[in-house]
Amino acid sequence: MSAPTRVTIDPAFVEKLILDIAQYGSDGGTGVSRTVYSPEWVAATKTYADWCEQAGLSARMDTVGNVWGRLEGSEGGKSIVSGSHIDSQTPGGRYDGILGALAGLIALKALKEQFGTPKRTLECIAFCEEESSRFPSANFWGSRAITGGIRPTDPETTIGFGGETIGDAMRDVGLDPARIPEARRDDIDTFVELHIEQGPILEHAGLPVAVVTGITGIRHYEIKLRGTQNHAGAFPMDLRRDPMAGFAEIANGVVDTAHRWGRPAVSTVGRVHVMPNATAIIPDSVVFTLDTRHPDPDLCRKLHETQEAYMREVAKRRNLDIDWKIMIDHPACPSDKGVVETLRRAAEAQGVPTMLMASGAGHDSQQMARIAKVAMIFVRSKDGRSHTPDEFSSIEDIVAGIEVLAAGLYRLAY
Amino acid sequence: MSAPTRVTIDPAFVEKLILDIAQYGSDGGTGVSRTVYSPEWVAATKTYADWCEQAGLSARMDTVGNVWGRLEGSEGGKSIVSGSHIDSQTPGGRYDGILGALAGLIALKALKEQFGTPKRTLECIAFCEEESSRFPSANFWGSRAITGGIRPTDPETTIGFGGETIGDAMRDVGLDPARIPEARRDDIDTFVELHIEQGPILEHAGLPVAVVTGITGIRHYEIKLRGTQNHAGAFPMDLRRDPMAGFAEIANGVVDTAHRWGRPAVSTVGRVHVMPNATAIIPDSVVFTLDTRHPDPDLCRKLHETQEAYMREVAKRRNLDIDWKIMIDHPACPSDKGVVETLRRAAEAQGVPTMLMASGAGHDSQQMARIAKVAMIFVRSKDGRSHTPDEFSSIEDIVAGIEVLAAGLYRLAY
Repeated sequence: MSAPTRVTIDPAFVEKLILDIAQYGSDGGTGVSRTVYSPEWVAATKTYADWCEQAGLSARMDTVGNVWGRLEGSEGGKSIVSGSHIDSQTPGGRYDGILGALAGLIALKALKEQFGTPKRTLECIAFCEEESSRFPSANFWGSRAITGGIRPTDPETTIGFGGETIGDAMRDVGLDPARIPEARRDDIDTFVELHIEQGPILEHAGLPVAVVTGITGIRHYEIKLRGTQNHAGAFPMDLRRDPMAGFAEIANGVVDTAHRWGRPAVSTVGRVHVMPNATAIIPDSVVFTLDTRHPDPDLCRKLHETQEAYMREVAKRRNLDIDWKIMIDHPACPSDKGVVETLRRAAEAQGVPTMLMASGAGHDSQQMARIAKVAMIFVRSKDGRSHTPDEFSSIEDIVAGIEVLAAGLYRLAY
Repeated sequence: MSAPTRVTIDPAFVEKLILDIAQYGSDGGTGVSRTVYSPEWVAATKTYADWCEQAGLSARMDTVGNVWGRLEGSEGGKSIVSGSHIDSQTPGGRYDGILGALAGLIALKALKEQFGTPKRTLECIAFCEEESSRFPSANFWGSRAITGGIRPTDPETTIGFGGETIGDAMRDVGLDPARIPEARRDDIDTFVELHIEQGPILEHAGLPVAVVTGITGIRHYEIKLRGTQNHAGAFPMDLRRDPMAGFAEIANGVVDTAHRWGRPAVSTVGRVHVMPNATAIIPDSVVFTLDTRHPDPDLCRKLHETQEAYMREVAKRRNLDIDWKIMIDHPACPSDKGVVETLRRAAEAQGVPTMLMASGAGHDSQQMARIAKVAMIFVRSKDGRSHTPDEFSSIEDIVAGIEVLAAGLYRLAY
């Protein structure tokens, strides 16, 4: 590795790429709806590949639909990769996902122009799918293919909101689901993903960029409380088995627990279904979800235990039946400490002020961690908004993030 | 009034009438679905009128569809009336409403047979509608007609679950909505309604019958809490404006407040609607209902004030927007003290053990209180169940209730 020479990123070029690619799936104003294997997606992936070629990278789409740009290193070996996903929410905005795919491309172009051929091979990537916005169980379709996590039956059992299989959607754009295994990679050393923060922490801290120390563990519970349905007027409070009262105490308690634990613990009750849901009837049952997250594996387990014990205690004391299913259970995924340190030092060298933080959202990096060292870079989000056309990050902050990325890749590959 | 001779009620006759009239609208097993102006309702009202005639009463249907049986008194003057509604929930059981209509009929038949012509005119009544089970805003359609509470526009603006107007439903069964005002009465002195308790208080007290000291005040709030929709992972607890957290604290608090006040205060959260209602999204808004009841007018107002202050405090502290509408606001309706005392003494004379209690549910008596002295008699409900095919009261308890009613009417009319 040579001395930490500063990398320069052109803001005008960054802005042009963001605005140009937002046309594919433009959904009114700043909205973008670009689901995997849609016509908009086809156009966007083709454009991304063209831009890779124009930047002097060799471009290819793999067998699942991920687009790769490659800058061959003089010494060979495993690749250093950066990117994110090209699909969006419906509608999402101009930044979630696509910004990281563009950042990888822009960083490689700048490094090639400013420092020539790297020792290690550098690659940028636009993952084909991450949002589950067309196929609710697609579950990191693009990065799962790369890590060998797609089962042979998945193409025909992963069903879209319109009833179509993801296998048929692939065939419609000229991809053969039987060839998904060919997308697997075992030659990636390091993966760095740049993404918008999607939360307000950087904004509140007054900083443009964060280096991400790990991705939170995420568990989704679906909990059912059952009592006895009765008349809201004629049944005294002391004789009720009211599942709404139990729900309210539990929701209040679990939210309060996460709040008292403090950052980065979070717990959210987002969905409630009441039976029969009538004003003058003590409900028969309340079904609700609990989303609970912590990036430290031990503390995550402790938080689960604390909340589960509390839910059982409330149900028992109120003589309610309680059951739950765990719908999603992603373990916490710590970043590679060495890569985090490299990115932090790269930021210092570039003069970009950063903080360390955990990611409260899931990302392709979780999948890539199965086969490579990973870390992430977050760029400040206005008002912490995402998954909406209102999401926004300034070009100044984005350029700062790409500078950190490029300077980090320089340290890893030159 | 002559000496308190005991009235005798024939259990076999009581059981026969309950089972026979349950055929009209029989809805599987012990279920009954008999909505106002339906074919089943037409058959049941005709049967009720026939039974009145067979008991030696003069029977008539008034212009809104209430069926009256009349036993003329020798001294004229205002009537002493007893009855309840003939319509049901969908499905309800064999007792809610219809039992009181039959009890009035059975009591008058027994009094006529055992004591001859009364001094004061006695009438029994089957109100045409009370449950709002076909027209959700019918709001005591039968007793409202009697008290002059139906506005001229109501027949065309009261819409059924099937989209039909209540005016058309009346015309379909040969009633002219324009003639509703003719159903008005200003010659009723006292109205006594027998009804199943619909709650578990008598069962827990081990008593068959209660004399009702008043009907609870009922207020229904629809409350909207609004916060800021955000990502459940990326938004720290301390920066959230989470309306679900506010809702949980409020629901927990108002339920706990009513519980601590003790009987007869009740508060129920029965209906909740969350936007967007997704597992991983901090909601934008939570809309919920609060049903709160107390039979003492002053304490009822105090309970409202306490709960409203609490809701405002929670919303303010959590920086949530709060608004509410009051959907229903029935004032508490105390029974006439003299009539309560007459019924209590009648029960003593009959050897029926009773207790005094308030009604936590609304009843036609609330409407009748606008034009007459009112009181009610409750009969024990198994497990406190009602508005379900499972509702049940034993013939023994029902006979005890009708004995109290008949002995009370005897004291008022002979």
